[in-house]
Amino acid sequence: MEIEIKARIDDMNKIIEKIEKLHAEFIGEEEHEDYYFTHPCRDFKENDESLRVRFSKSGTYLTYKGKRVSREIKTREEIEVKVDGNILELLEKLSFKLYKKIKKFRKIYRYGDLEICIDNVESLGNFIEIEGIGEKEIYEKKVLDLAQKIGISEFENKTYLELMEDKNHERD
Amino acid sequence: MEIEIKARIDDMNKIIEKIEKLHAEFIGEEEHEDYYFTHPCRDFKENDESLRVRFSKSGTYLTYKGKRVSREIKTREEIEVKVDGNILELLEKLSFKLYKKIKKFRKIYRYGDLEICIDNVESLGNFIEIEGIGEKEIYEKKVLDLAQKIGISEFENKTYLELMEDKNHERD
Repeated sequence: MEIEIKARIDDMNKIIEKIEKLHAEFIGEEEHEDYYFTHPCRDFKENDESLRVRFSKSGTYLTYKGKRVSREIKTREEIEVKVDGNILELLEKLSFKLYKKIKKFRKIYRYGDLEICIDNVESLGNFIEIEGIGEKEIYEKKVLDLAQKIGISEFENKTYLELMEDKNHERD
Repeated sequence: MEIEIKARIDDMNKIIEKIEKLHAEFIGEEEHEDYYFTHPCRDFKENDESLRVRFSKSGTYLTYKGKRVSREIKTREEIEVKVDGNILELLEKLSFKLYKKIKKFRKIYRYGDLEICIDNVESLGNFIEIEGIGEKEIYEKKVLDLAQKIGISEFENKTYLELMEDKNHERD
């Protein structure tokens, strides 16, 4: 289970300052190109699932995410597989259709066994994500405690994919 | 494009002797556990396609094979992706169903840019496969020439998966 909270941030430097004061360890920076796919015969959106191919300097990953168990603190099953080869063409052959691309820059920090990500998402803005993987009850508490320490109280419960859809609808 | 011929062999040692006389280079031995899947909403069999996860000591591979263009010399599109992670669980989440497992021992030889495989397939017996990847016309000729040199004239145009299905029907 992946347990995660996300929040919009206005002042990225202020947040980073707070994280560094907590002595979170800076892990590195990554650029992600995320390709989201529709299923050939199932409505991922209706079932609150997703299938993503992530291209990053650390490799290419195929990731399935299951239904959110809770929405405030996003808790959902995640299965990630590292892939080497033409996964886009293979998915296309199986009738998965490319639905959306999302590009972002991510700064990654580690705090205990939690991960803090500071994301600049193309056309959506800046966000912080705090994430843990494990037992729901334990990690919900851990994630919330850390959010409080950083001073985050208003969470964004939509995924980047949903926020991008909202943005596109506004434009229409 | 993958261009391939397959033939049953009665006397494995005799065939290996012939291959060695041609100075084909012995590459190695592998044990394959091949898992074949059905598509969530398309009949792979009807479309002459397949999706396979291969476990071998050199790694785990997800492979899509397209419709055979010709049947005598099996010519079909192949897309192979190396994977690291729980690909079986991920496929299951996407509603691909495990259909059949096929286990085999393979001796691999290289002859120019062709691959010769001597397979012992669990419950099917011994086979030789000669395979090239590239331009259809060129490799069909190359593959046939090598088959002639080895003394193979009767080809098996079914896949191991089809042969396994035939065997199971016999049993029923």
